[in-house]
Amino acid sequence: MKGESYMLKNVNFTEKPEEDELKARLKAAREKLAALQMQIKEHKIPVLVLVEGWGTAGKGSLIGQMIQNIDPRFFKVATMDSPTEEESRKPFLCRHFAKIPEAGKFMFLDSGWMDEVVRTRVHGEMDQKIYEQRIDSIRRFERQLTDNGYLVMKFFCHISEKEQKKRIEGLLDDIDTRWRVSENDKWQNKHYEKCLSVFDRYLEDTNTPSAPWYIIDARSRKWAALQALETLTQGIEIALQNQSLAVPLLQNVFPLVKMPKLSEIALDLAIEESEYKEELDKLQNQLKELHNRLYRKKVPVVIVYEGWDAAGKGGNIKRITEALDPRGFEVHPIASPEPHEKARHYLWRFWTRLPKTGHIAIFDRSWYGRVMVERLEGFCSENDWKRAYNEMNEFEKELHDWGAVIIKFWVQIDKDTQLERFTDRQNTPEKRWKITDEDWRNREKWDAYEMAVNEMIQKTSTSYAPWHILESVDKKYARIKALKIVIEELQKVL
Amino acid sequence: MKGESYMLKNVNFTEKPEEDELKARLKAAREKLAALQMQIKEHKIPVLVLVEGWGTAGKGSLIGQMIQNIDPRFFKVATMDSPTEEESRKPFLCRHFAKIPEAGKFMFLDSGWMDEVVRTRVHGEMDQKIYEQRIDSIRRFERQLTDNGYLVMKFFCHISEKEQKKRIEGLLDDIDTRWRVSENDKWQNKHYEKCLSVFDRYLEDTNTPSAPWYIIDARSRKWAALQALETLTQGIEIALQNQSLAVPLLQNVFPLVKMPKLSEIALDLAIEESEYKEELDKLQNQLKELHNRLYRKKVPVVIVYEGWDAAGKGGNIKRITEALDPRGFEVHPIASPEPHEKARHYLWRFWTRLPKTGHIAIFDRSWYGRVMVERLEGFCSENDWKRAYNEMNEFEKELHDWGAVIIKFWVQIDKDTQLERFTDRQNTPEKRWKITDEDWRNREKWDAYEMAVNEMIQKTSTSYAPWHILESVDKKYARIKALKIVIEELQKVL
Repeated sequence: MKGESYMLKNVNFTEKPEEDELKARLKAAREKLAALQMQIKEHKIPVLVLVEGWGTAGKGSLIGQMIQNIDPRFFKVATMDSPTEEESRKPFLCRHFAKIPEAGKFMFLDSGWMDEVVRTRVHGEMDQKIYEQRIDSIRRFERQLTDNGYLVMKFFCHISEKEQKKRIEGLLDDIDTRWRVSENDKWQNKHYEKCLSVFDRYLEDTNTPSAPWYIIDARSRKWAALQALETLTQGIEIALQNQSLAVPLLQNVFPLVKMPKLSEIALDLAIEESEYKEELDKLQNQLKELHNRLYRKKVPVVIVYEGWDAAGKGGNIKRITEALDPRGFEVHPIASPEPHEKARHYLWRFWTRLPKTGHIAIFDRSWYGRVMVERLEGFCSENDWKRAYNEMNEFEKELHDWGAVIIKFWVQIDKDTQLERFTDRQNTPEKRWKITDEDWRNREKWDAYEMAVNEMIQKTSTSYAPWHILESVDKKYARIKALKIVIEELQKVL
Repeated sequence: MKGESYMLKNVNFTEKPEEDELKARLKAAREKLAALQMQIKEHKIPVLVLVEGWGTAGKGSLIGQMIQNIDPRFFKVATMDSPTEEESRKPFLCRHFAKIPEAGKFMFLDSGWMDEVVRTRVHGEMDQKIYEQRIDSIRRFERQLTDNGYLVMKFFCHISEKEQKKRIEGLLDDIDTRWRVSENDKWQNKHYEKCLSVFDRYLEDTNTPSAPWYIIDARSRKWAALQALETLTQGIEIALQNQSLAVPLLQNVFPLVKMPKLSEIALDLAIEESEYKEELDKLQNQLKELHNRLYRKKVPVVIVYEGWDAAGKGGNIKRITEALDPRGFEVHPIASPEPHEKARHYLWRFWTRLPKTGHIAIFDRSWYGRVMVERLEGFCSENDWKRAYNEMNEFEKELHDWGAVIIKFWVQIDKDTQLERFTDRQNTPEKRWKITDEDWRNREKWDAYEMAVNEMIQKTSTSYAPWHILESVDKKYARIKALKIVIEELQKVL
């Protein structure tokens, strides 16, 4: 039976040590952390420290204690308030994912996704189904981080009903501390038992082997600091030891759609010029009208373009965007990541580029670079890219659950057509910027890429986000096909 | 007498050409823009296109027309809504500065700082003094952009009261377009004459030689598109021609404080260990208490640390932050800019790192790199760094007007002390990461740096943001002095 272990209700704290011992151990833990921060930096481990807990339990001062001996260049602190209007138009995890630390650095979060979920839950504003979805999201999120080498330390600061009441009253007594007591703190204290049950449930639901919870006895600030510091340094030491060990690969858990191999795709499809013009006009007008309804109904749309160099992605995207209101879409051309992006989980730069509800984001290349260029050029380990299929399916599952329409295009041409277009670009002055030495180098690896693309298409065509192949030897044919697919997918939800 | 020229009231539009001519010219302008975008890219010119105008005048569709022939990799579109709660806790210009384009790219803004100012003004929520301050800010902002090679194109879409009314009614008739009519649109139409006067005043106040206004006759969409496209391409052609010309240098217009030269600063100041401990404890407690009040009164604080390598900046900053609530401050270590930062105005990465009201931002190195390392290493032109003194004074003036406390520290040591500390770092394993070859190279340029620092301190010690020298041969002395200055400056405003 689920729910038998109550992490808070049945908590048994170690006794607080004597003042002298406390002081000595605090000093030792601080010095240890100061030394470990250099190893974190050297081994490029990102450390996420999530501090959750009761209102007035001293989350802020606990963070203050932990950062004391860390160089300001190596850490950041963020306080998560309730989501803003803008944030509430993004997937639940979005603003949390945005906060993950860079490699070799610490991020301390003063409450986060736990607080967001339990706060809504305890007020009865989240039904069981959504709650379970959130728990799934959170477990996947934390696992994706630890799988990718993140150290995730989760602390819950626990105080009793009586202690909380005493603190609230103390803070309210002084004009300079009064602002620290929120309405939520007071509410919590009045409904302490109810909160306790919801917190307990959440802690158990998200207590995973790779990112377990640590319950901190927060009655005394110094004692709380010691518990957190000793647990944190221990966690870091284990992470340093484990860094070289392989991470288990997760099997894909989402239903897949059977897809053809690239070599099986007929490329002789074409369209007459006159028919093209007529269709284009008709479809663009249809899309324009759908964009209005999309906006009104606040449906977010994510369109991904991948394909061979010179396959015609740019022109294809243009035929879509021409039909859209410029205030309601954004095209994200994805090049190699910048340093601050490379220093984080590879999905970070996509999480931070998601559209808000009612908007369309078009990715000209995407997260799938992980299993194509990054795989073939050795920018990530074999374990990394093998894990990525499932991670990307999970990412798209988040988008799907959020209500997004996801459309993924593979723009397909054959090797001869590419050569023709490369040569044309080389010989036409105003097109020359489009062709680089790298394109020629990639072309030499055509067969390796074809193998990788086939594997990608098979393993990431989920029922909720399958790939669509655009036969683009005749670019016009591909444009019309893309427009039709976009329209069809939008009509399904509108 | 000011206010004699009414750009809107007395506007005389050219007559709209016949349909055939319109079509031909539109086609020509589009093709021209398509060709010019490559030159923009090649010459790395950033282009900011601001589209302001009456509600329902068709700003969005005008932008839609302009981007039609620009590659999605080269432009972005942003819609500026009313400031969010977070944004309203930053200086007025902050969210606008954040949107400036990268070198070689276009940014299209669907309304912006004009809309924000006139909207508040027309509702009587902004008095004359604040209005004039805003106008000053805007003029400086736009001039800083054009001085730094930005092309700033400002369009105002004009329609008559009658035309606006007709459009509003048309949009309201259809459920799919109804959301496009805002309360503000309706309000504008009801108070058309009043708005007209406020708009006219604003247009005249911000009509500058380097960033003039273009009034677009927006009665017909196609005709509006033609006017905008022809003006834009013309603007680009002029910008391309002018790129090689020198930009006039602006004299400093802010009152300066007389400062000593570095060579005149006595460095034998020191403090006893016992006195240091006592003072540190006392001052940190005082600062802690002030931080609470700061937070409650929502005063933003910006602290800048510059100084010689190994002067003791890090340890000094630490003694400040130890006294602060981690949720209320952030330390920004400033290294060399990343590609997306280098591609924008050099102040962009500081505008986007400002604290919100009630928070403290500490910059470990800062915008002053422009007149030190960038000057001496030739990372910018002579014209650039000479102009920068005034630009940085202007930047700090914005912060001052916003209500920020600005504290700038120069941490001073002599050349021998630096050598001692470098050697110590080199010989101590856990400090070795702090010393790089670059530090040694910079050391060789000590005299050049001293000259640059002297010039910087003289030219940027304004009455509202003077430099403070921290004599740091005895680091403890410098820490106590810094704490005292911070406390004193905070007490002035609290």
